[in-house]
Amino acid sequence: MDFVTILGIVAATLTTIAFLPQVWRTWKTKSAKDVSFIMLIAFMSGLVLWLIYGIILNALPIILANSITLVLNFIILWLKIKYR
Amino acid sequence: MDFVTILGIVAATLTTIAFLPQVWRTWKTKSAKDVSFIMLIAFMSGLVLWLIYGIILNALPIILANSITLVLNFIILWLKIKYR
Repeated sequence: MDFVTILGIVAATLTTIAFLPQVWRTWKTKSAKDVSFIMLIAFMSGLVLWLIYGIILNALPIILANSITLVLNFIILWLKIKYR
Repeated sequence: MDFVTILGIVAATLTTIAFLPQVWRTWKTKSAKDVSFIMLIAFMSGLVLWLIYGIILNALPIILANSITLVLNFIILWLKIKYR
């Protein structure tokens, strides 16, 4: 595995797991008032398109990264609605 | 330009401009308490790696999308520190 591929995997992992602390914080504080609803919807719409893009190209890294990020952001959205 | 390329451009645009409403909300409410500091740091680190990845591959879409997203998240981080 060459350097660039490893760099891409680490980048994808970071921009995916980055949302775990946001899920944890929202769940712990029972508050997501400062998290923009429009940002979540726009971001998740983009993630769905990235997911379709990855499926069409049969690109597992794109499918994996974006489906996990989508699930995490869906949880943040759900918690934001729940704790409104 | 084929369908898949257009899909990728729209996906990249959405997951980039999605952070504009978050910048606007944080600037307007002068509060980012609910936005996870760790998420911002981890996400921005990942964006830096994606930027290096794009520069190495000379892939303009990856460079553009991730540099704009990085700037927007940097502003959110700066506002979060400012309004602590």
